[in-house]
Amino acid sequence: MNMDLVSEMLELGRRAKTAARELARLPSERKNAGLLAMADALASHHDAILAANALDVEAASAAGLSVAMIDRLWLDEKRLAGMAEGIRAVAALDDPVGQTLRQWTRPNGLRFNKVRVPIGVVGIIYESRPNVTSDAAVLCTKTGNAAILRGGSESLRSNVAIANALRDGAARSGLPADCILLIPHADREAVRLLAEMDRYVDLIVPRGGTALIETVVRHARMPVIKHYHGVCILYVDRAADLEMAERILLNAKCQRPGVCNAVETLLVHREVAGAFLPRAAEILRAAGVELHGDETVRQILGDGVVPATEEDWTTEWLDLKLAVRVVDGLADAINHVETYGSHHSDAIVTADEASAERFLNEVDSATVYWNASTRFTDGGEFGFGAEIGISTDKLHARGPMALEELTTYKYVIRGTGQVRE
Amino acid sequence: MNMDLVSEMLELGRRAKTAARELARLPSERKNAGLLAMADALASHHDAILAANALDVEAASAAGLSVAMIDRLWLDEKRLAGMAEGIRAVAALDDPVGQTLRQWTRPNGLRFNKVRVPIGVVGIIYESRPNVTSDAAVLCTKTGNAAILRGGSESLRSNVAIANALRDGAARSGLPADCILLIPHADREAVRLLAEMDRYVDLIVPRGGTALIETVVRHARMPVIKHYHGVCILYVDRAADLEMAERILLNAKCQRPGVCNAVETLLVHREVAGAFLPRAAEILRAAGVELHGDETVRQILGDGVVPATEEDWTTEWLDLKLAVRVVDGLADAINHVETYGSHHSDAIVTADEASAERFLNEVDSATVYWNASTRFTDGGEFGFGAEIGISTDKLHARGPMALEELTTYKYVIRGTGQVRE
Repeated sequence: MNMDLVSEMLELGRRAKTAARELARLPSERKNAGLLAMADALASHHDAILAANALDVEAASAAGLSVAMIDRLWLDEKRLAGMAEGIRAVAALDDPVGQTLRQWTRPNGLRFNKVRVPIGVVGIIYESRPNVTSDAAVLCTKTGNAAILRGGSESLRSNVAIANALRDGAARSGLPADCILLIPHADREAVRLLAEMDRYVDLIVPRGGTALIETVVRHARMPVIKHYHGVCILYVDRAADLEMAERILLNAKCQRPGVCNAVETLLVHREVAGAFLPRAAEILRAAGVELHGDETVRQILGDGVVPATEEDWTTEWLDLKLAVRVVDGLADAINHVETYGSHHSDAIVTADEASAERFLNEVDSATVYWNASTRFTDGGEFGFGAEIGISTDKLHARGPMALEELTTYKYVIRGTGQVRE
Repeated sequence: MNMDLVSEMLELGRRAKTAARELARLPSERKNAGLLAMADALASHHDAILAANALDVEAASAAGLSVAMIDRLWLDEKRLAGMAEGIRAVAALDDPVGQTLRQWTRPNGLRFNKVRVPIGVVGIIYESRPNVTSDAAVLCTKTGNAAILRGGSESLRSNVAIANALRDGAARSGLPADCILLIPHADREAVRLLAEMDRYVDLIVPRGGTALIETVVRHARMPVIKHYHGVCILYVDRAADLEMAERILLNAKCQRPGVCNAVETLLVHREVAGAFLPRAAEILRAAGVELHGDETVRQILGDGVVPATEEDWTTEWLDLKLAVRVVDGLADAINHVETYGSHHSDAIVTADEASAERFLNEVDSATVYWNASTRFTDGGEFGFGAEIGISTDKLHARGPMALEELTTYKYVIRGTGQVRE
């Protein structure tokens, strides 16, 4: 074990816990002033951030990363201004902390208040673009939580520069700078240590690939809210408006195939398979989608359909590929979703309300849709104003995770000397 | 690894998952009819349960367990009737499943419904009395969850007999018998396996001692809601009504010292220590309480006070013992609570509203009290009708965990063909 790293991580934990206690006491106005100062600091640290980013981009080019990857990494004036605008938008949102969730009085006169409070210290692990450093940090500050961030190795220099700017903005406005801490190490050992620090870290949110999530799940001693994969399924029922089904399918599969709420499997009721599949295949192929079909699908569509394997039904393609199966009816469709799906976002297209309601009731997913695209699973589309991501877990946060999900509650009980009989 | 046990546990998991899917679809009336049938089955299985219990009691006597332990284990007509009554009371409660938590419509016409749904399969691990088998199982059935139970080794025969009765009642009323499954093994290996079965188990609730909780936390891959210890703290402020403080202290320490919401540490403001400590010590000593005090406490109270060690401030005595410290003021008291407390239930006694509000705001515990005994931290006293226990965790369930906390939510979204722009 690397004892220097251990003591460095423990020190980060202690500093975060101290900052969280201070932050939890501050009124919304103070936190919002801090957020605006952070947005300003991104501008005043402009040169340092872009210089650090240039080094990351240079290293990524030298390492032969793809153009798409480098584009994700790249920061410029416009993107930096976008990050600052994002912070100002979060400052303008309502603060859930302090809200009364329920209040009641017992016959003995005790007055109960269930109130929203910050969670404390939130560890966020991500692999994507440097703007996540800012987005994730400010959502935590807004809700009175200290954040310990750990971004991807390829954007480490950019992340450090962005975190420095945010910390500077926080300190200038009188917030504890340690409300935002970034782990300046790229190795996985730091993730394992963070996951074991339940004395200091109240929640850990991993967003990323299978190996990262597995490391966190295996080691975590505190609650974990995974942002994992979406094997989203669209079921076209016997009673579907086929023109509507076509539009929803095209949107759910092709509008942005690389995201977790894109559809990966299409189920079609046997009675409309002959009518629906050829027209669906035509528009999908025109959009460049490769189809993996079961035997019936291949009989209907002929050549050009890859035979679907068992593994295809659980595959998150994140690509212009689609697994297609013909089912015998609603029960068969629900069974498929429950057996192979990832319980992220699943949809039925049908004009039959009874079938729709049964699907909505029996499919145990974070979000279930009737006659709409799965692509709406998103904090912004839900009207939440911002999101930390899409939780694929079942407890505390399920589906889009926004400001409310970054809080918990406590019971405040006011009495006049009551004792228990 | 014991492969027979592994395959047996996996089979339990599969059966529970299947039962959970079936149970989740049933309306409240069907679940309540099942609960009433379970209550009746406790009566019809009366002889088998009492015979199994007699064997447990005999083995416990032979093993030299204390009279108190044997009394906890013991079942008779009256206690069995009490268990059945408890089930009927749960049947009469409102079912949280299906409740709409929030609904809204977006500008694009999508209608959102956030609804309560069962969690799925809940693993409950406990070490206490055999009636917990029935109490925990029926709260899960009520909320549409399948339960996998694992009780203490000394009550294994009784637990098996009770679970058999409940399963029989469930089956007779048409519920899946596998909605209640009991692990018929006393070894810790079964707990470890259960904690690793995140494919089948959605939540694990350990109620018990440090070693048991540690096993679960170390191995769990799914959310854990610990029912751990309570180092509850009472702070008597400068502005306290000392007569009220005395009554609350006596109640919180002595009414039932062996439970998690009993007070373990007393903090007294320096300015009232001379007036309060002698009278408090007198009534506590009359009740048989041993005091562990800091230097100031010992100066005031003289002989007979055990010098408090650093460890005493984090000790859950569960006994007629109390750690006592004099503090310099409110900030010092809050600091002590945040440093040494277990964030379970903490109380301030004061007539000064500003001090009370600051304590209620800054103490980050599941339940915080002003002028009332910590003994009220209990599902029944909160008015929840029933409880699975007191969560010492911060997320999903904090404090008394009742029916609502045995549910989660999903988003049901109804559209008319909407696609994302």
